Amino acid sequence: MPEPSTSQADQLLFPQWLLTLDTQAPDQGLEPLEGQAVVLAGSQILDILPQTQARVAYPHLQPQILDQQLLLPGLHNLHGHAGMTLFRGMADDLPLMTWLEEHIWPAEGQHVSEAFVRDGTRLAIAEMLLNGTSCFSDMYFFPEVVAEVAEELGIRALICAPIIDFPNPWSANPDEALDKTRQLHQQLQDKPLIHLAFGPHAPYTVGDETLNKIRELNQKLGLKVQMHVHETAFEVEDAENHQGKRPLARLDELGLLDSNFQAVHLTQATAEEIQLLAQRGVQVIHCPQSNLKLASGFCPVEALRQAGVSLCLGTDGAASNNDLDLWAEMQTAALLAKAVHQDAAALPATAALQLATVEGGKALAQEAYTGQLRRGFAADLCSLKLDTPDCWPLHQISSQLVYGRMGDKVHHVWVTGQQRVTAGQLQGMDLKTLQDQAASWRQRLQDSFQSQDAKA
Amino acid sequence: MPEPSTSQADQLLFPQWLLTLDTQAPDQGLEPLEGQAVVLAGSQILDILPQTQARVAYPHLQPQILDQQLLLPGLHNLHGHAGMTLFRGMADDLPLMTWLEEHIWPAEGQHVSEAFVRDGTRLAIAEMLLNGTSCFSDMYFFPEVVAEVAEELGIRALICAPIIDFPNPWSANPDEALDKTRQLHQQLQDKPLIHLAFGPHAPYTVGDETLNKIRELNQKLGLKVQMHVHETAFEVEDAENHQGKRPLARLDELGLLDSNFQAVHLTQATAEEIQLLAQRGVQVIHCPQSNLKLASGFCPVEALRQAGVSLCLGTDGAASNNDLDLWAEMQTAALLAKAVHQDAAALPATAALQLATVEGGKALAQEAYTGQLRRGFAADLCSLKLDTPDCWPLHQISSQLVYGRMGDKVHHVWVTGQQRVTAGQLQGMDLKTLQDQAASWRQRLQDSFQSQDAKA
Repeated sequence: MPEPSTSQADQLLFPQWLLTLDTQAPDQGLEPLEGQAVVLAGSQILDILPQTQARVAYPHLQPQILDQQLLLPGLHNLHGHAGMTLFRGMADDLPLMTWLEEHIWPAEGQHVSEAFVRDGTRLAIAEMLLNGTSCFSDMYFFPEVVAEVAEELGIRALICAPIIDFPNPWSANPDEALDKTRQLHQQLQDKPLIHLAFGPHAPYTVGDETLNKIRELNQKLGLKVQMHVHETAFEVEDAENHQGKRPLARLDELGLLDSNFQAVHLTQATAEEIQLLAQRGVQVIHCPQSNLKLASGFCPVEALRQAGVSLCLGTDGAASNNDLDLWAEMQTAALLAKAVHQDAAALPATAALQLATVEGGKALAQEAYTGQLRRGFAADLCSLKLDTPDCWPLHQISSQLVYGRMGDKVHHVWVTGQQRVTAGQLQGMDLKTLQDQAASWRQRLQDSFQSQDAKA
Repeated sequence: MPEPSTSQADQLLFPQWLLTLDTQAPDQGLEPLEGQAVVLAGSQILDILPQTQARVAYPHLQPQILDQQLLLPGLHNLHGHAGMTLFRGMADDLPLMTWLEEHIWPAEGQHVSEAFVRDGTRLAIAEMLLNGTSCFSDMYFFPEVVAEVAEELGIRALICAPIIDFPNPWSANPDEALDKTRQLHQQLQDKPLIHLAFGPHAPYTVGDETLNKIRELNQKLGLKVQMHVHETAFEVEDAENHQGKRPLARLDELGLLDSNFQAVHLTQATAEEIQLLAQRGVQVIHCPQSNLKLASGFCPVEALRQAGVSLCLGTDGAASNNDLDLWAEMQTAALLAKAVHQDAAALPATAALQLATVEGGKALAQEAYTGQLRRGFAADLCSLKLDTPDCWPLHQISSQLVYGRMGDKVHHVWVTGQQRVTAGQLQGMDLKTLQDQAASWRQRLQDSFQSQDAKA
């Protein structure tokens, strides 16, 4: 990475506490520092040094005093379907197949369009920026629209082009999806905020032929490949019954499991499969709230961690969560791992924090350099104001971040050095318009279901 | 209950949406109503009627317009240890016995005093009022101090006098604890906000002799009896090994299991035990986040519900949670029940809402009349402002309340008609003083551990 020079310094941040998550620091950057300054130069972090020294070294810069605030890397939400935010709460508490077949799929069939994706994604990004998310991953139709909206609103994104064997709103067949992905790769080359990935939907919706084409194409492109894998016991059993092997075994035979592969959900994994994932360098994206809500099963987080598998976190779509709050996901991950592993020391707060930052950063293209506050890394940061009774006393900052309610404490957010949230207010986005658009989609969705009900 | 008269009407609330949770309404009060007014008279709800009619019927009252707000009953947090809020985050991610023996018990031994309980309880109440909790239950030392602080700050409380067989900061022996409980009962007779209960700590800390005395004494007093029961598998196995029976069987033999009995945690229960609890009318207090964090096990919530057992919710103390946010507890309860019961339809959002309100109300003395918005019930209410992107679109209010992040949306809170939170600001409590007190206790706690470490 080309490091900026001192003369390019343009922002001086003086937080009360700093958590760098810097993996090269002796304590992995997990110990809160006081009296430290972060110096930004354009889109990058130029320096981290004591505030007293920063005042001398950068006399031309007026420091931004972050009173009662903790500064840390922006969060990385590595799995979701932003467009589906418009379905938030539309059909909850239903068995998985009823939910999909009677609600989500008909609604998608009738309503998903470029306009739907544009409005849903804008809403999702507004929510995520406000809660300190500086990077999100998306797997949904019309990825070119998602990329455009993300760039416009200034949030970093890993865009997983959806590849499915059957016709869908974006592609008539998988070859069209692959062609469009190639085109998108060309178009997005010079967009520093946007990282493209392949998004083959799931083992049961993408056949061997398509997966082989993805592998071949990716030998040139070297992109990440994100896929729902072993989401439920049913998926695995069904594959065993019909294909004679478990999906992970099939994916490995096809040569897909490598350090570019991201397995989302993984509620089912044998000890051998955990070893395989570790050997292949596969990253697992854990979505604990979605797994609970859809009764999908429990991801063996602590066993994966102990085997050395890199894990990061995702909220999944708002239709199965129902918020896009990675703080809550961190909390659920840390709490649930203890119960599942029957050990109150499993997935400690510091480790959960790393999943949402450092490990999330690993899920992007290598040149992104996010998830840590370190010289030369991207200036993707957020500050939290810890000035309410639920933060007191502040014995241990990492505990507070993971086990407390934190999404509402987010004060400022920067992505590539641009301040996107200031004192809890979104910059450059009109909330009233967002609210009206959401209300309008709500009306259209409700009307179509009522007319369906009337016909039935 | 003596119903107030129309002439006593003194507050007129015009929310955008109203959720009464009224069990006598055809839909159990679970359907959000628009255009309705709530009329308060002193400490009670006088009437609920259309806003147009209310303007005519109460022309002398200026309506309080609750714009973009949902009005519903205040939440009931039925299990906690408010004083322990000062331990928040002090020792996390540790195995249960290490946590207790090396951190919590030494800290309690050295620091728990009337002053500690007073300051910790004030802090807990501030947090709870701010997140819409109008009623909390407490089981901790110096219950007379907790009662005094709760009354002073105007929050409703179920105070469980702690009864333990061994010497503790409040009592040298169980007889002293029982004497003090009797005295407290006398002192609290005329306090409408304060409800007294017996709080025998747990089956393994209270012997048969003490439990018999509680049962006898309670034949006259008719109080609730709250106890940690079957919190862990170890507790049950240990009792089987040493006493030849499971704790619930022992409590039933002692005649304690009746409709006044509240079993906290209950992560272990056979099908027969669930039937027994239903027959006896025992109420179960579910603390899902604490159970997860301490790896205690999974409460069989859905099986209990299906057997007709009344369930309500508690956060437990901040040392094992780490917040006192019953919205988060509702969410965790609803999500976890689905995974544990392997059914995405288990504990739907509407049922989770009832646990935190209606069922919580049943946990108090019968004359409290809380947990529902209904004529003659206590004017214990909260309003939530649903004006942020994470609430849009608002397809289903009950889903939003349970699966969204809601603690930070609380706008106004009333207890017995007194407004305790106005536009998110605590009334009559100085936050700076609270913060300073918490910081001072933090220092004292840290110092004592450092000096212990130095000695070791």
